[in-house]
Amino acid sequence: MKKNNYAIGVFDSGLGGLTVLHELKQIMPYEKFIYFGDTAHIPYGNKSKSTIEKYCLDIINFLETKKIKLIIVACNTASSVALKKIKKHTKIPIIDVVSPCVLNAISKTKNNRIGIIGTETTISSKSYQKQIRTINKNIKIFSRSCPLFVPVIEEGETQQQFVIDIAKFYLNKFNKHNIDVLILGCTHYPMIKEIIKKTLNSNIKIIDSATSTAKHVNDYLDNKNNKSDNNEIVYDEYYVSDKMVRFYDIANMFLKQKIKKIIQINF
Amino acid sequence: MKKNNYAIGVFDSGLGGLTVLHELKQIMPYEKFIYFGDTAHIPYGNKSKSTIEKYCLDIINFLETKKIKLIIVACNTASSVALKKIKKHTKIPIIDVVSPCVLNAISKTKNNRIGIIGTETTISSKSYQKQIRTINKNIKIFSRSCPLFVPVIEEGETQQQFVIDIAKFYLNKFNKHNIDVLILGCTHYPMIKEIIKKTLNSNIKIIDSATSTAKHVNDYLDNKNNKSDNNEIVYDEYYVSDKMVRFYDIANMFLKQKIKKIIQINF
Repeated sequence: MKKNNYAIGVFDSGLGGLTVLHELKQIMPYEKFIYFGDTAHIPYGNKSKSTIEKYCLDIINFLETKKIKLIIVACNTASSVALKKIKKHTKIPIIDVVSPCVLNAISKTKNNRIGIIGTETTISSKSYQKQIRTINKNIKIFSRSCPLFVPVIEEGETQQQFVIDIAKFYLNKFNKHNIDVLILGCTHYPMIKEIIKKTLNSNIKIIDSATSTAKHVNDYLDNKNNKSDNNEIVYDEYYVSDKMVRFYDIANMFLKQKIKKIIQINF
Repeated sequence: MKKNNYAIGVFDSGLGGLTVLHELKQIMPYEKFIYFGDTAHIPYGNKSKSTIEKYCLDIINFLETKKIKLIIVACNTASSVALKKIKKHTKIPIIDVVSPCVLNAISKTKNNRIGIIGTETTISSKSYQKQIRTINKNIKIFSRSCPLFVPVIEEGETQQQFVIDIAKFYLNKFNKHNIDVLILGCTHYPMIKEIIKKTLNSNIKIIDSATSTAKHVNDYLDNKNNKSDNNEIVYDEYYVSDKMVRFYDIANMFLKQKIKKIIQINF
């Protein structure tokens, strides 16, 4: 097999990364994707750096057994705290979800006031802040962890009034801070993008990991002349470390299509 | 050391089991306790039986390296799906949190209509239902998983209006079912007992794992003549598999006292 027809590996702590995969598949329908969801260890969002690093290296070791040309860390928490360790561990090129969001947000802000929301570990790592400040020191950054968004989304209860109340509880301060861009720094959050939008002043643009990363990956493969030359859709592969309760329902909700087969891997 | 002065091991998927430990320490202040919270794998509530069994056996192996006279499975999910495997694996006597609640609930109901709430894995295991029906086939059982309670409690956001709305969303149906006892089948739930109480009709008695199990353990040790003969308070030991963000805050909130030292163990 020619190397440009190798698969693109995509992994996340669980199923949130499927929002990234959805966008990747929209832009690059002829690429083959191998998805790994670390559902035995979900969520990463409140765990420590060293524990998350350990889980990520196990996943990289697994992906390295496959024919892979690129790995996407489709988890903001892992991208925020484990990226250095991951890049050191493998020769396969790595793309994370933080950098594409940062570049996208900086290009969109007009008043240099950016908000960021994410899990506790992502926010307390200050990964977004550091990357933004490296590029532009004049940008004011406002951040908040929103730890209840992930469970609310995974339960599929996004139509209840209390979700709007939780969104208001977390997001009201961003309106006061007069930001003009909000980064959704968690791959789950695109699932409640409309609720988040309604809670915020109408001038605030929303940047999410899924669309930002998919565009970035597409540009990257174009630049490297490394796109697949298939002209028909190939079957993707899905692996998880545990088959959670209501697993397929949640997965299909994130990917917006039915997954036929998901294989469980025990490390 | 005399065997009756050995410690009591208590474990949970994370920190919820500290509500059980709190009650144990209230009733038996002179016992020594060794607590293990499997924070690297939290939560168990939506993971599969086989994965939870594996995690539990690792914890039992760790506790067996200590001088332990009794192990308490202070987690409803583990008690519901892994108890058989645990009991087969060790010679140390095991007490779970489901049986004490079941006995307590059956003794309290007058109209033979009992409600149960818990995590998804606990509720779908039907562990409570099976045990209740073994004792009394005439009892009608109504159950519901309440997966958002655990994250809401762990975030310490129990004073927000949306918590009351979430409680109403989950619990309203129990009022219609005319139950007179509700079992809180998760060791986290005692933290929002007052909110749950306010949501329910005033005649509904609430049974929780913490007080039911503590009383059961006290009776068990009395019957076996196996209480500690210390007459001063000994230091407990606390172990976890990961030091999560805001770890000490959450632990102190559950235990209602300050823990000085928590040791991290990597399996």
